[in-house]
Amino acid sequence: MRKDIIKFKNPPSIISRASVVGNKEHQGPFGGKYDMYDETDRFGMPTWEQSEGEMQRQALNLAMKKAQLKAEDIDAIFAGDLINQCTSSSYGLLDFDIPYFGLYGACSTCAQALLLSSMTVSSGSFENCAAVTSSHNCSAERQFRFPLEYGSQRPPTAQWTATASGAFIVSSKGKGPYIVEAMGGISTDMGINDANNMGAAMAPAAISTLSRYFTVTGTKPADFDKIITGDLGFEGYSIVIDIMEKQGYDMRPVYTDCGLVIYDREAQDMHAGGSGCGCSAALMAANFLEEIERGILNDVLFIGTGALLSQMSVQQGLSIPGIAHLVRIRREI
Amino acid sequence: MRKDIIKFKNPPSIISRASVVGNKEHQGPFGGKYDMYDETDRFGMPTWEQSEGEMQRQALNLAMKKAQLKAEDIDAIFAGDLINQCTSSSYGLLDFDIPYFGLYGACSTCAQALLLSSMTVSSGSFENCAAVTSSHNCSAERQFRFPLEYGSQRPPTAQWTATASGAFIVSSKGKGPYIVEAMGGISTDMGINDANNMGAAMAPAAISTLSRYFTVTGTKPADFDKIITGDLGFEGYSIVIDIMEKQGYDMRPVYTDCGLVIYDREAQDMHAGGSGCGCSAALMAANFLEEIERGILNDVLFIGTGALLSQMSVQQGLSIPGIAHLVRIRREI
Repeated sequence: MRKDIIKFKNPPSIISRASVVGNKEHQGPFGGKYDMYDETDRFGMPTWEQSEGEMQRQALNLAMKKAQLKAEDIDAIFAGDLINQCTSSSYGLLDFDIPYFGLYGACSTCAQALLLSSMTVSSGSFENCAAVTSSHNCSAERQFRFPLEYGSQRPPTAQWTATASGAFIVSSKGKGPYIVEAMGGISTDMGINDANNMGAAMAPAAISTLSRYFTVTGTKPADFDKIITGDLGFEGYSIVIDIMEKQGYDMRPVYTDCGLVIYDREAQDMHAGGSGCGCSAALMAANFLEEIERGILNDVLFIGTGALLSQMSVQQGLSIPGIAHLVRIRREI
Repeated sequence: MRKDIIKFKNPPSIISRASVVGNKEHQGPFGGKYDMYDETDRFGMPTWEQSEGEMQRQALNLAMKKAQLKAEDIDAIFAGDLINQCTSSSYGLLDFDIPYFGLYGACSTCAQALLLSSMTVSSGSFENCAAVTSSHNCSAERQFRFPLEYGSQRPPTAQWTATASGAFIVSSKGKGPYIVEAMGGISTDMGINDANNMGAAMAPAAISTLSRYFTVTGTKPADFDKIITGDLGFEGYSIVIDIMEKQGYDMRPVYTDCGLVIYDREAQDMHAGGSGCGCSAALMAANFLEEIERGILNDVLFIGTGALLSQMSVQQGLSIPGIAHLVRIRREI
């Protein structure tokens, strides 16, 4: 029978973290906490895909600098993004000369990268791993919906792909925050086929992972200081609260979602909120892990949620599968 | 300092393997060895992307059946393909209800999936993992080059994306073939920007990984029964032999490449040979692992090679980075 939960005997630490964001994210509620931003969103590059790659490069550079590690100290990079063939990761991280494992988990990629980094570090195969993800509004809109110049209207359920990147160093030598448990997501498809309502497509996956986790561990939401999904936005957040309540779990007191809070939805006119591989990565790096380090939070579930669609699958009329990977992060062990 | 080689204390076994191919592959030199083929290449599906997904589904189903394992016995799937957002893997494997980790390593994905399966199984986190990859000529040509209907001419350096899928079950309980060592690839970009000469783009990555491996382990090509790259085709194969010779390594007596041998290049008019995530996967599953099980081969290096380009990166004039992941497979330990 499957081992649903991976409990780490030697929990690895997230010894360093860095975030790089665009202008809209800088103007949002967490604007002061990101390590770096560019008000043009271009990061000095000629194309949006290269801008996104440059954000990953800068984020990893910063995370390595903070940990006082050089490229030869990093055993492997786990990285991914939303762009076809993970172009931004492949090109952005090319110069580091570090073994590279490309991932594709859509907006769940940050959690997937942290999970795989933890598994490989905890087992002693690696000593230091980097988990790096990004998204860029301009590259994502062009690819998944319409080029920006077209000026397409966004429905109220639409999320705004964040221009953001987060990088983390996961190490066997550290004093926390510790990744103590992990659980891989099972793809879930409830028949949603509206590419402008990703929250509804991803919420069932988040619910599936949360229910499985609570059932297997015998825990409940109130056992945690915070449960963070990323990125369901307002639509998906509301669905998770409603359905989990029907299953007997009261999520409200501890539940937040990176897409819900990354922008001031009213003042910034962000409809259902933010999304993208960089959204939860930047918020975890800039805010939630800092709150864990400062002792404001001690025991946190982070559930990265992804919508596994492509432009082609939408055009071919297929519904959108979701996936949600979980890591449990504690200040102390 | 980085640990270049991952040596498994508890080497996992590849306890089961299955291959599913299209018509051209069935007509090739290994035609009789694949588990299944469809002479229409459609596998009963209405679109090529879904045909490719169906090949993955059938390959994993067969591999599980051979190992007498059910879905609930598999801890995780590591899977990927060439299609945007790994659509074929996401949709093809949706029905299994097994935790799913999407990968993107282009044609190196089979080796990457075997490597990550081995790491997570060897450490005891998982007991059984599935590694599944695929490619389909019709979905890949439409995406990376031209739709088939356009009838574009192929230059002599072009490789033919194989219509093929391979699935492997990597288990902590087994009697081999054993994955005893692994080495993650470092992306390498030597400035090749011709999307019709992937062999030249990927060869430097294969050379980088092979040189690193021989240097760190103090081994040489003749220490192995076979060194298999996948998939460099005739162009990349020749480059590897030449450059490795200049570095003092004689590859010729033991070296082969999945893209070079999957088709009868002359009779089938396949130019530089085959490629695609499914090429090396199907050949490893159908032929090389069988040769290891039968004792024809005892100690093998399998180096999966990938070209990390996208249609967009080519259009934007960027050169093509390559990557090469290595696993060492032994009949006995």
